[in-house]
Amino acid sequence: MVRCVPNHRDELDGVLRALADPTRRALVERLAQSPAVVSELAAPFPMALPSLLQHLRVLEDAGLVTSEKHGRVRTVSLRPGGLDVLHLWLAQQRTPAELAADRLGTHLARYVPEER
Amino acid sequence: MVRCVPNHRDELDGVLRALADPTRRALVERLAQSPAVVSELAAPFPMALPSLLQHLRVLEDAGLVTSEKHGRVRTVSLRPGGLDVLHLWLAQQRTPAELAADRLGTHLARYVPEER
Repeated sequence: MVRCVPNHRDELDGVLRALADPTRRALVERLAQSPAVVSELAAPFPMALPSLLQHLRVLEDAGLVTSEKHGRVRTVSLRPGGLDVLHLWLAQQRTPAELAADRLGTHLARYVPEER
Repeated sequence: MVRCVPNHRDELDGVLRALADPTRRALVERLAQSPAVVSELAAPFPMALPSLLQHLRVLEDAGLVTSEKHGRVRTVSLRPGGLDVLHLWLAQQRTPAELAADRLGTHLARYVPEER
């Protein structure tokens, strides 16, 4: 049987399709540092502004970024929790051996004193 | 400046392109439970075997699965650590606010006694 997580499937699909492109990943990497206005975001990329805006639209449709316009300036931010669906899916793909290792790690973090 | 992680960029690209397809994600989900022979893997999917084998090849090229042939039977497994490059990339996209929350969580896990 193929396991399904129907509520998250479309969202996950959008997130992974968005991140499969290196330019869009680079935009996410930049925005993880801080929000940025579009001109600032566009500067390092060797592409015309309309192409960059198209990439931003794919990220926005996937729920990974949000943007707000103040006057003539649009500021783009990483959407908090936008990557949660991917974190969750990855956590579900832990193999039985990895889950056992996770439990050991949690136990050690809790009971072995921190080095100072 | 766009941050680069050149050593991992191609590997990450392959992993995300592989996972952007729902059939390939479903195969990973199945293999996270246990290794499986190809006929068993193929059974739930409404597609011809050559198409399924093509999806498995993409997953293998991306370093996400390995397979071994014993006699006439090929067994496919999730490759340990195959998703590490994606875990690592996701960890790097934590925003400053999320990193502060992570540190608080680590502190609480270490110093607040576990409920019994």
